[in-house]
Amino acid sequence: MDKKENCGLFGIFGDDEAVEKTFFSLHSLQHRGQESAGIASSDGNTIACHVGMGHANRVFRGGRNVLSMLKNPIAIGHVRYSTAGSRNLINAQPLLTEYSMGQVAVAHNGNLINAPLLRDEYEAYGHIFKSTNDTEIIVHLLAKPTHVAKTDPLAHLLNHLQGAYCLLFLFPDRIEAARDPYGIRPLCIGKTKAGAYCVASETCAFDTIEAEYIRDVEPGELVTLDKKGLSSRKFANTKNISGAHCIFEHVYFAKQSSRVFEENVHEIRKRFGAQIAREHPVEADVVTPVPDSGTSAAIGYSQESGIPFDMGFIRSHYVGRTFISPQQDARDLAVKLKLAVVKEVVQGKRVVVVDDSIVRGTTTKGKIKALRQAGAKEIHMRVSCPPVRFPCFYGVDFPTKEELLASDKDMKQIKKFLDVDSIGYISLEGMLSCASKPKECYCTACWTGNYPIPVKTVVNKFTMERYHMPLFDDEPIQL
Amino acid sequence: MDKKENCGLFGIFGDDEAVEKTFFSLHSLQHRGQESAGIASSDGNTIACHVGMGHANRVFRGGRNVLSMLKNPIAIGHVRYSTAGSRNLINAQPLLTEYSMGQVAVAHNGNLINAPLLRDEYEAYGHIFKSTNDTEIIVHLLAKPTHVAKTDPLAHLLNHLQGAYCLLFLFPDRIEAARDPYGIRPLCIGKTKAGAYCVASETCAFDTIEAEYIRDVEPGELVTLDKKGLSSRKFANTKNISGAHCIFEHVYFAKQSSRVFEENVHEIRKRFGAQIAREHPVEADVVTPVPDSGTSAAIGYSQESGIPFDMGFIRSHYVGRTFISPQQDARDLAVKLKLAVVKEVVQGKRVVVVDDSIVRGTTTKGKIKALRQAGAKEIHMRVSCPPVRFPCFYGVDFPTKEELLASDKDMKQIKKFLDVDSIGYISLEGMLSCASKPKECYCTACWTGNYPIPVKTVVNKFTMERYHMPLFDDEPIQL
Amino acid sequence: MDKKENCGLFGIFGDDEAVEKTFFSLHSLQHRGQESAGIASSDGNTIACHVGMGHANRVFRGGRNVLSMLKNPIAIGHVRYSTAGSRNLINAQPLLTEYSMGQVAVAHNGNLINAPLLRDEYEAYGHIFKSTNDTEIIVHLLAKPTHVAKTDPLAHLLNHLQGAYCLLFLFPDRIEAARDPYGIRPLCIGKTKAGAYCVASETCAFDTIEAEYIRDVEPGELVTLDKKGLSSRKFANTKNISGAHCIFEHVYFAKQSSRVFEENVHEIRKRFGAQIAREHPVEADVVTPVPDSGTSAAIGYSQESGIPFDMGFIRSHYVGRTFISPQQDARDLAVKLKLAVVKEVVQGKRVVVVDDSIVRGTTTKGKIKALRQAGAKEIHMRVSCPPVRFPCFYGVDFPTKEELLASDKDMKQIKKFLDVDSIGYISLEGMLSCASKPKECYCTACWTGNYPIPVKTVVNKFTMERYHMPLFDDEPIQL
Amino acid sequence: MDKKENCGLFGIFGDDEAVEKTFFSLHSLQHRGQESAGIASSDGNTIACHVGMGHANRVFRGGRNVLSMLKNPIAIGHVRYSTAGSRNLINAQPLLTEYSMGQVAVAHNGNLINAPLLRDEYEAYGHIFKSTNDTEIIVHLLAKPTHVAKTDPLAHLLNHLQGAYCLLFLFPDRIEAARDPYGIRPLCIGKTKAGAYCVASETCAFDTIEAEYIRDVEPGELVTLDKKGLSSRKFANTKNISGAHCIFEHVYFAKQSSRVFEENVHEIRKRFGAQIAREHPVEADVVTPVPDSGTSAAIGYSQESGIPFDMGFIRSHYVGRTFISPQQDARDLAVKLKLAVVKEVVQGKRVVVVDDSIVRGTTTKGKIKALRQAGAKEIHMRVSCPPVRFPCFYGVDFPTKEELLASDKDMKQIKKFLDVDSIGYISLEGMLSCASKPKECYCTACWTGNYPIPVKTVVNKFTMERYHMPLFDDEPIQL
Repeated sequence: MDKKENCGLFGIFGDDEAVEKTFFSLHSLQHRGQESAGIASSDGNTIACHVGMGHANRVFRGGRNVLSMLKNPIAIGHVRYSTAGSRNLINAQPLLTEYSMGQVAVAHNGNLINAPLLRDEYEAYGHIFKSTNDTEIIVHLLAKPTHVAKTDPLAHLLNHLQGAYCLLFLFPDRIEAARDPYGIRPLCIGKTKAGAYCVASETCAFDTIEAEYIRDVEPGELVTLDKKGLSSRKFANTKNISGAHCIFEHVYFAKQSSRVFEENVHEIRKRFGAQIAREHPVEADVVTPVPDSGTSAAIGYSQESGIPFDMGFIRSHYVGRTFISPQQDARDLAVKLKLAVVKEVVQGKRVVVVDDSIVRGTTTKGKIKALRQAGAKEIHMRVSCPPVRFPCFYGVDFPTKEELLASDKDMKQIKKFLDVDSIGYISLEGMLSCASKPKECYCTACWTGNYPIPVKTVVNKFTMERYHMPLFDDEPIQL
Repeated sequence: MDKKENCGLFGIFGDDEAVEKTFFSLHSLQHRGQESAGIASSDGNTIACHVGMGHANRVFRGGRNVLSMLKNPIAIGHVRYSTAGSRNLINAQPLLTEYSMGQVAVAHNGNLINAPLLRDEYEAYGHIFKSTNDTEIIVHLLAKPTHVAKTDPLAHLLNHLQGAYCLLFLFPDRIEAARDPYGIRPLCIGKTKAGAYCVASETCAFDTIEAEYIRDVEPGELVTLDKKGLSSRKFANTKNISGAHCIFEHVYFAKQSSRVFEENVHEIRKRFGAQIAREHPVEADVVTPVPDSGTSAAIGYSQESGIPFDMGFIRSHYVGRTFISPQQDARDLAVKLKLAVVKEVVQGKRVVVVDDSIVRGTTTKGKIKALRQAGAKEIHMRVSCPPVRFPCFYGVDFPTKEELLASDKDMKQIKKFLDVDSIGYISLEGMLSCASKPKECYCTACWTGNYPIPVKTVVNKFTMERYHMPLFDDEPIQL
Repeated sequence: MDKKENCGLFGIFGDDEAVEKTFFSLHSLQHRGQESAGIASSDGNTIACHVGMGHANRVFRGGRNVLSMLKNPIAIGHVRYSTAGSRNLINAQPLLTEYSMGQVAVAHNGNLINAPLLRDEYEAYGHIFKSTNDTEIIVHLLAKPTHVAKTDPLAHLLNHLQGAYCLLFLFPDRIEAARDPYGIRPLCIGKTKAGAYCVASETCAFDTIEAEYIRDVEPGELVTLDKKGLSSRKFANTKNISGAHCIFEHVYFAKQSSRVFEENVHEIRKRFGAQIAREHPVEADVVTPVPDSGTSAAIGYSQESGIPFDMGFIRSHYVGRTFISPQQDARDLAVKLKLAVVKEVVQGKRVVVVDDSIVRGTTTKGKIKALRQAGAKEIHMRVSCPPVRFPCFYGVDFPTKEELLASDKDMKQIKKFLDVDSIGYISLEGMLSCASKPKECYCTACWTGNYPIPVKTVVNKFTMERYHMPLFDDEPIQL
Repeated sequence: MDKKENCGLFGIFGDDEAVEKTFFSLHSLQHRGQESAGIASSDGNTIACHVGMGHANRVFRGGRNVLSMLKNPIAIGHVRYSTAGSRNLINAQPLLTEYSMGQVAVAHNGNLINAPLLRDEYEAYGHIFKSTNDTEIIVHLLAKPTHVAKTDPLAHLLNHLQGAYCLLFLFPDRIEAARDPYGIRPLCIGKTKAGAYCVASETCAFDTIEAEYIRDVEPGELVTLDKKGLSSRKFANTKNISGAHCIFEHVYFAKQSSRVFEENVHEIRKRFGAQIAREHPVEADVVTPVPDSGTSAAIGYSQESGIPFDMGFIRSHYVGRTFISPQQDARDLAVKLKLAVVKEVVQGKRVVVVDDSIVRGTTTKGKIKALRQAGAKEIHMRVSCPPVRFPCFYGVDFPTKEELLASDKDMKQIKKFLDVDSIGYISLEGMLSCASKPKECYCTACWTGNYPIPVKTVVNKFTMERYHMPLFDDEPIQL
């Protein structure tokens, strides 16, 4: 089972160009997942689905032809995050299946803690599994006769799920959109000019199709998009839950132009930057971001500190994430291919470098080295989130604890490892003070180890191995 | 649900080159299916699987690389028949799944009459379906807890299946091979020089890997290939079943070099030809086959009649079956691209043309026209099977009754339609007299309408439509 | 320089479907070359051209789209023979260039003996070369100002060429077709029902597009297809030349349905077979061809000898020539994948095996071995051409002298090498007696070493190396 | 003939990883051309070459395999600019040919004014042309016997060329690099740590392979890289030539991290921005660039004006230039897919938008519209180059005069067309004052119409048409 999935979702009901709009929306959500893309769509009676490996553009590149084989006016789409080694068409979504009530297609963003348990249970009851992702177990839950018999089968089944999830269910005649009671992953509601409702992981999808952002799907809410428009019900009592928004969405995942958890990503990142400037001031000549993830915070740092902002790094438009095989000794080259240093900006200067986060530290080290080679006099590293020290069980693909730079190093050791003149992480308190919601509303597990949803480590080694059914892709993935 | 499937199976246990041998065997069985190919293999502990659209050569063409990702020494393979419009990676086999007892991969040749009923029943019990083929329901049956609990779960589940089937089950530590109680499709057992047992749809697969044919899997027999060698048990009482071998395997499907139903295909086809010569003698100058399917019978006709055998048609090696889109007006061109007439063989001659069967009659008509254009003086059509008048429910992909040439035409009308000087089909009695087994052992439903396994027409329109879930291929199929 | 090229040509003038007809004709000529395919076409003013690696079907597979980018009503096409290691898009034809008189596209079948000399000469005059084939030098000759100034530049340049050639020149407003004074390679003229003239390497191309064969282009003739219809002139005095038709076209290259050198290929091959039967009679039970190249001769042998004809080998439709890498130790497998033995035909029998030729002898040896394994009691090898002992300089791709089986072995040694009970090659006299033209009309160099056009071995090692400019294909070739 | 080519060049002599370094350098020069990529390399004796359509990454993606078929230690590489409609493998470079002195591979960046004249002349002398680019004529000049006979053939031929050019010649034993006497396009010299000399269009290529920038190739200089190291000679007297560096390299083409014409691109762009701020001050709340081309100038504008810099647009990493077909009505969508507006940055604000240039104005209009939709209160457009009013004959691919926004519109009309509150272009004087060289050293033709090299409009309509030989690609280009 892929324990770590951050993906992108989109759905729209009642638009004659539903499929095309879904395609363009997936494109705008592409930063949330490049492994695979898919669209399931319905004409009100039957669902058609197409999924493939790679960018939305590649999957639907024959373009008009494939898109035209799909149906309007109802569609959902999915882009999937790529984790090395698990690229597999069988895990692409939406997942279209048939059960006793007919067809359903499901798209999922998040990570279920109890998926292995549920899977074992369902296998015990005679069910079979073809894929290694959480989504399949959700459909098994949906198809369970005792669930089908409930007044609100969907609401019922959602209560069986533990973990982080935003879910889109496409039935032939409607879309149902659900968000877990903790609201870990984002999901928001929009409306096109013509009045069609849509849902998306981030509001940037709405901007692309000129839809208007209405509001977020609330934690524990189940929203229906059908002929009658939009209707809503709560499937979980969230009174005693303060919420656990993944603040890493603000730090890294979401697009700067998006509204996520009810505030703009770029703006909160600028506040992060300003906060670090207050927490870790330094005398310097220039503030440069590691583009693009550090750009917003660097602007904030510059504005707060008064140190001029400049572009010490130029990012290449021609490198995919998988351009270089991840051998440790190729990392320096990978950095160079992705980021070019503008010598004139840093040579002989005291440079503040702002990045969103440091995970393993190896690529950061490469960037620092490149600045040194370009003649930077002093390098002051500033990071817009606290040191990552704990694994995430709700969908962020951090490496193992051993690989996390900050898991066993203090600031002095990190400073030495990175070869910087000073290191400054934003404090947890400082970071949370930048957000517009009360600090209790955010999940801080990766920094504190306090998991909002209890995590029993159910995944034993045998289970993990069993899930690795090596079904290869039909076609090799292009860089 | 694809009602019509004629496919090819191969399995081998205990060979260090199991995967490679399976690949070569699939190649030799390629005539049984060109839509997709797949291999599932095991190292004794875990199953790995790769499937793809198109010829085995295309699917595994990266060749050594993909093959080397699979495992030895246990493997099964499958080639799938292509029916227009249903090309779909999701239907490719072997189908690898997980259930309560671990992994299993299944490969299937045949057609289950009760698949829709079983599917409806299982959906009612909360099961979900991803594909539209019979194989998936078989795995659901296997995974059913009450079945799992039986002394011999496999034998138990097989008794739930109605119709034609040869099945290979690959478990991590063994292969199980089953053949339906009527023995409708062929399945035979071989042994390599080094002593590894193998099973295949036709013996030609054994020739390729220099294995020796041992015997057929018997109707109602379940054969196990594991570390202890080969063991066998009966899962069905076949005492009162005379057998229902699909004689169309002899007429058309099987390779001439194969032994099928315990006799050689080429030899029986020659006897068919001789029998037509006795039933429908004619004064003529030359006997020419429609290559390659009519070649064996034409030799038989020539030898019996004394009329010289010659090649009036030359078959192109460069045309796939799907070369030309099946528009009626392109058929003449399609015939010309596939078959070239040797004018000198037929010009001014009285020509006996021998083909294996006439289904729709349209391509036959095109061939006759080509002979006329080349100057044939008389054309006498001879067909080595009786007129096809009824649909097959056991796996042969005949068109609908309305499209069958002989369904509503008498010999005079057929003669006129084809524009031949005489027409002669082998008689049913004559055909059966050529076979080495008693005539009760063969299924003759497509000629007589007598179905050996009762066919309730369970497939209602709603069901059929539901099954057409248009999940497209990731990649367009090449010609 | 590829010294060995046997290719296929087609051209048509004044047909609204000229491009499509060229495509279908290339398909029917595909047996003459599978390395690359191309079409150049004109609307009367401008020439458009598309070439690619592989079968015509692959090159133009997008099909209608690519074809529709080409122009009507004038087109020429080319299929190129594949010699291992020289697959190169830059050598694909037709070759479209511009020179002082505008555009010209050239397609070539044959081999120029003096190409290296001409190339060296032209380079000395400041010309540059991009490809390694003969065709480019022909265009340089065409563009030479002193040639352009001649009354009939084409006729003039053709007199500079030594060797075997059939050439199609497409100018924007006409096609010119030439055949060398010895008539080594075939080229014939046809006419569609609507009256459009066409030219092709073999008449089988005409059959496909329902054109009628008119006559051969004569040795030393230059034929013009333009708005005025067909006109002809001689560019060489052929009075004292008896002709040197490559009889290997009859033996192996040409399609059985074609008329080549004014007689049908299948018929002459049958006569070859009958002649061997007379020269090398044997008591036997069955005559089997090595399909497909030996089929015609085997029929002739059977008819003459009275020994029954049967199919001891079945040829697979799914093997390309390049299926298996040419490692010596993989040849047995290659034989098995391509040819399946019908045991029942040969088991316990005295078998006459007829093939068209034996070159290296290695694959023949594999076939014999397969027959032995299938239980043949006696094997009598019969070959429908004399032992190949000398290289061809006119376009046939024989291996080096050292590799030719018969170059240094007598019949006894060959019999031993192949492990046959008897070996019988047709005699040269016998072979020539089967042809309809006087024996002086055929080239017999590969058997006798008597080269009709004097061969100065101009190609020194340096030259050869220089020609091997390893420009790789854009795309790997598919099997 | 493609009149407009801006390409990227790289060459290296004497490095065991010459091919690999060339590949990485092409990657860093990818912004100079995405149509095709190629590498020619030599082992000192023979040249091997591989070219293909698309990014370097695609062309060499099989990666190690293709690269390993090339040779070390000498290599040159080329990336080619894509102009719509002329994508054609036959135009890809380096162009490898043979002439009397052996092999040579040529890579070219620039545009020859007299290419059509030379081509006509050479055709008159009997030469043939296969491609439609300038590079081929250069090789004809090189191969001319009277040129070959000169003491310094290369120097001699370069004097025949008129226009803009940087050229790399790869001979089996050396690289020769030339730059036109006006120095229109950039070309610089570097040296690896191990001492191998290299040349590149921009210094960013050196950064990637950790080579050090030495100096520019001077206008009129011919530099030789061979076993003896680096040597130089002048092929043209440049005493009376002040130089004509294309300042558009600074404005748009070159990478910000590069040194071009002896100064850093990012720094000069910042000075451009500061200069506009002085020339066109405005009261505003925020300065936002159109990323990435306007980013440097926007930083300069912000720093000079004191108005805060912020990112009003976010650029997508997943859109190629050709993502959307260039239909006018799809432009708004294209803008949205490429650039996302951060509403919070511009809403209710007075926004200064800085871009590098405005050519047609249509995409700029789309960007302005997007800002308006996001709620910008005022929009002040600032452009870091003067209005483009004249075509470029030296390699920049501007549209026709009619399509240039500024060709027939005054500032008021442009302001209205773009729907901005104010418009401010940098003045020519102001722009030139930012450059470090005297203003006479730069070409300003596209703004002033003063062409440093006399342009006779030699290309008549007939010529242009002739050059459009539509030879299609072997494979369709992927997005």
